[in-house]
Amino acid sequence: MKSVNELISEYSLRIGDTSLILGQRLGEWCGHGPILEEDIALTNISLDLIGQARIFLTYAGDLMTHKKTEDELAFFRNDRAFKNTLLAEFPNGDFGQTILRQLFISTFQYYFFDYLKKSKDEMLSTLAEKSFKEVVYHVRHCVEWTYRLGDGTIESKGKMEKAIGELWRYTGDLFLSDETDAELLKLGIAVDMKAVKTAWDKKIREVFEKAKLPFPSETFMITGGIHGNHTEYLGRILSEMQILPRSHPGAEW
Amino acid sequence: MKSVNELISEYSLRIGDTSLILGQRLGEWCGHGPILEEDIALTNISLDLIGQARIFLTYAGDLMTHKKTEDELAFFRNDRAFKNTLLAEFPNGDFGQTILRQLFISTFQYYFFDYLKKSKDEMLSTLAEKSFKEVVYHVRHCVEWTYRLGDGTIESKGKMEKAIGELWRYTGDLFLSDETDAELLKLGIAVDMKAVKTAWDKKIREVFEKAKLPFPSETFMITGGIHGNHTEYLGRILSEMQILPRSHPGAEW
Repeated sequence: MKSVNELISEYSLRIGDTSLILGQRLGEWCGHGPILEEDIALTNISLDLIGQARIFLTYAGDLMTHKKTEDELAFFRNDRAFKNTLLAEFPNGDFGQTILRQLFISTFQYYFFDYLKKSKDEMLSTLAEKSFKEVVYHVRHCVEWTYRLGDGTIESKGKMEKAIGELWRYTGDLFLSDETDAELLKLGIAVDMKAVKTAWDKKIREVFEKAKLPFPSETFMITGGIHGNHTEYLGRILSEMQILPRSHPGAEW
Repeated sequence: MKSVNELISEYSLRIGDTSLILGQRLGEWCGHGPILEEDIALTNISLDLIGQARIFLTYAGDLMTHKKTEDELAFFRNDRAFKNTLLAEFPNGDFGQTILRQLFISTFQYYFFDYLKKSKDEMLSTLAEKSFKEVVYHVRHCVEWTYRLGDGTIESKGKMEKAIGELWRYTGDLFLSDETDAELLKLGIAVDMKAVKTAWDKKIREVFEKAKLPFPSETFMITGGIHGNHTEYLGRILSEMQILPRSHPGAEW
């Protein structure tokens, strides 16, 4: 039986990992955006996400029986120990796919953090408050682009439809929950994922409608992020992200 | 004989190009820093630089006989048309080399923008004011790290000394000036590079002394950035930076 601290640590780790891996992925656009303005926008979102990762991983590490720093958690765990949602590790693809992935995750984070602000765990509530403010801008940015791309040229619309086809089956993983969620939900600490899913579905449906994009029908969902079951992509992200710190462990430079 | 507008355009282009290429180089650290905190810091500096590039290139393009946008200037010129200082295109190397390159250029920009704030060209003065505020933080960050690395472990000190050996001969290019500078200096628009060099020398000497790093003796300097004579590295940066916009020219996405 896990202690409440251990449960909160695990919960905070999941939140931090999603921000970390998505921030890392998005950072790959750094210097490769289609226009300078968008390059800056994507890199700014990436920085917000890495900032969120730092605060949630710091909290997760503090609550561990053997305390760990956020850098130890980011750089010295193997892929099975990462608890991020699968969509975060999915490749950038073209610009449309990057925007769609961001729309899915940012919209999720919007409702998730909005609920988490009311958590009875004061630290989670504070961190959610800070993160929510950032996510508001991320959602706005992605929604704007989804309108422009979906209701844009035949080429841009085609790319968005293809991206929906690629990404949709990973969206169910966003809302996956287990006994950690259940225990913490009873204590008023965790968020009810069913409520998040309902709000998310409604919002995405509205955005797709206005962007003239098809809303997919019920389909088989690939899940497993919170259990450490990842796609083949995560290992590659980690090897790139971890090579420098691992080759100089503890180095103060 | 060039018009004053053409001279100012050329002058603004040089400033913007240095920020653009250095911002691009620094962006390569995005997601690859030794610790999360530093990853964020370097990426933030990179974003400031890309922001500076945008404003100075926009101004340069506005003053051209055939107006160009900042994106056209960033993505559709070949290497000979770039006027950045050579140091900006130099590879990141290890973390120490990145910090040293940044120290050299940020310290240059600090004094350069500080003088340019007094330019009789109102737009250059305004852009310099904005950029100066950002550069203050960049200098502080690099100076702190230079102390830690120079006066740190034997390994970190050795790396800094090696970086000085690699980079020093490109520092003279920072202060290179020609008839564009001379004409604009007469009009109270441009900055006196000799004054910038004197201030830069003094500051770097102080920092090196406190960091227990050797200040190099007079040496042969490699110059040519403002004339479009670049190292082999620039072409590689440009090909990576320009591939996406060039393969979809004019794409609104």
